Amino acid sequence: MFTPSFLNGVEYLKISVLGCGRWAAFLAWYTESLGNQVMVWGRETSKRYQRLQDTRKNDFLMLPKQVSLSHSLDETISFGEIVIISISSQSLRSLGKQLHALGNIENKTFVLCMKGLEIGTGERLSRILLEELGAGIKVAVWVGPGHVQDFIKGIPNCMVIGSDDIAVTRQIVDEFSSNLIRFYYGTDLLGIEIGAAAKNVVGIAAGMLDGLQYTSLKGALMARGTKELSNLIEAMGGDPMTVYGLSHLGDYEATLFSLHSNNRRFGEDFVRGEVSDTLAEGVYTVEALMDLARIYKIELPICQAVYNIIKGSQDIKGELLSLFLRPVKAE
Amino acid sequence: MFTPSFLNGVEYLKISVLGCGRWAAFLAWYTESLGNQVMVWGRETSKRYQRLQDTRKNDFLMLPKQVSLSHSLDETISFGEIVIISISSQSLRSLGKQLHALGNIENKTFVLCMKGLEIGTGERLSRILLEELGAGIKVAVWVGPGHVQDFIKGIPNCMVIGSDDIAVTRQIVDEFSSNLIRFYYGTDLLGIEIGAAAKNVVGIAAGMLDGLQYTSLKGALMARGTKELSNLIEAMGGDPMTVYGLSHLGDYEATLFSLHSNNRRFGEDFVRGEVSDTLAEGVYTVEALMDLARIYKIELPICQAVYNIIKGSQDIKGELLSLFLRPVKAE
Repeated sequence: MFTPSFLNGVEYLKISVLGCGRWAAFLAWYTESLGNQVMVWGRETSKRYQRLQDTRKNDFLMLPKQVSLSHSLDETISFGEIVIISISSQSLRSLGKQLHALGNIENKTFVLCMKGLEIGTGERLSRILLEELGAGIKVAVWVGPGHVQDFIKGIPNCMVIGSDDIAVTRQIVDEFSSNLIRFYYGTDLLGIEIGAAAKNVVGIAAGMLDGLQYTSLKGALMARGTKELSNLIEAMGGDPMTVYGLSHLGDYEATLFSLHSNNRRFGEDFVRGEVSDTLAEGVYTVEALMDLARIYKIELPICQAVYNIIKGSQDIKGELLSLFLRPVKAE
Repeated sequence: MFTPSFLNGVEYLKISVLGCGRWAAFLAWYTESLGNQVMVWGRETSKRYQRLQDTRKNDFLMLPKQVSLSHSLDETISFGEIVIISISSQSLRSLGKQLHALGNIENKTFVLCMKGLEIGTGERLSRILLEELGAGIKVAVWVGPGHVQDFIKGIPNCMVIGSDDIAVTRQIVDEFSSNLIRFYYGTDLLGIEIGAAAKNVVGIAAGMLDGLQYTSLKGALMARGTKELSNLIEAMGGDPMTVYGLSHLGDYEATLFSLHSNNRRFGEDFVRGEVSDTLAEGVYTVEALMDLARIYKIELPICQAVYNIIKGSQDIKGELLSLFLRPVKAE
């Protein structure tokens, strides 16, 4: 169990949130609302951090005054017993190296609230953290459906906590469950992480179909997308059924259909020739999935098509339609 | 193989379409467009039939003049080698009895383009036809995603042909595949029929969530809905993976998200207290699914909630939210 602190007899936990983007700020807001003491870290040069420091607001929410802000990683990591990390996936390894250099990470539980895979290695985020911080730390992931925009309005959702240690999973679920977020236990960490990351790629594909007026093929996309990733997870040693749970299929409404979805929007804009100012997370993930396809010698036709299109394929429509309208075969 | 007829050296099949609703009219339009000779049957008293006879149009399409219309079931059934049936599911048994009384059904291949289960027995449609016409007939089902509105505009989709006889499946797929509809072979007829029927019930649930402003729970609905029906199909002796293919999950875009979906719309209207003039097909299906839950002693929480609400539960919000926000557990 976590070791709670007390204020006027009321129990609370100290939580560090590393990151200051939309989701990180929500996690600070949410965990504070459960009665915990929260410190948020962001880089001093980050515009998002500066805005939070100046106004305590972002486009979605206002941080309560009890949430402290710091641009000292040392101070923030020393603060919390639970360390929630929500940054861009490709930056996790360098953050891990920084944390390792700072030390003072013993007995902390790290919770990764992010979805991605490392380009070049295809490595999962929990593995990157273990590689950089040492196998002694406790790591869990917190993924699943839910948009900040909805949660802030009080619209509830279910999410998943997964780790390789069911005791860690239980502790986090116990601490963070509420009427707003109901957590399920995830037991296949590999499948959860691959599925959670890859749903952003399926989201880009969905947006591309929307952009080409082939929205009605998103049904076939859901059936084929889940299957292709189920095959990958099985080849990697995970449970082929995990993608059909909350971490992947359960996130399809938010990722393939919602107007809030960055990845869907990116795909739609891309096929319309509109340049996005920021790349969606799925753009990095699809590159890492190509690494995994190579390593595990497996075909990922939908991911491959998204990759080809992003890399400049001249036949966008052909790449997408051929996924679904290939010669007749068994499902 | 089917025995083609010839006109000026060009091969064609004779096809009877029983039914004259939106989908039946589309099937006549589509199979005629492939170069076949088509006769459509409707009851003389049916308003849809009268409108087709008077104007050759419905709200979606115009039937080409080569398609003949008849209100004689005897004439229509005698005409075609392939008999496509697209009527309301609860009427199939009585139509089967009429066909049996007429005779002249030997060597015909029946293709059921309809989604439902019989109230009182939970029986699948292909079984009803075999029970009424005798085990000697050939029966297949044609299901999967696709809205008439989209097909008519030339937007392609993938669908599934399933039967217990792979030779029959192959013949129908060969005859009816085109650039507009690409068919996949379905090998688990039981799973296909249960999944295709039940997706209308999940569609009603999706509409109810939309109506209550809980659209973001449709992700969890997709994950839990597929699982619950996978369990049912497995209990019935089918393949638990079939629901994750085109016949069920692949139809979720059209059924859970599209504005064209009758079942989604029905659910949305229902929770808003707006009375629909026609019941959606899923209203009948959910009653039959309750029969199956009893027969196979299995829990179907989502179907049960939809059933309770339609039957007048006073706590609509509670019925739906409790599906997803129950006490914490493993997925």
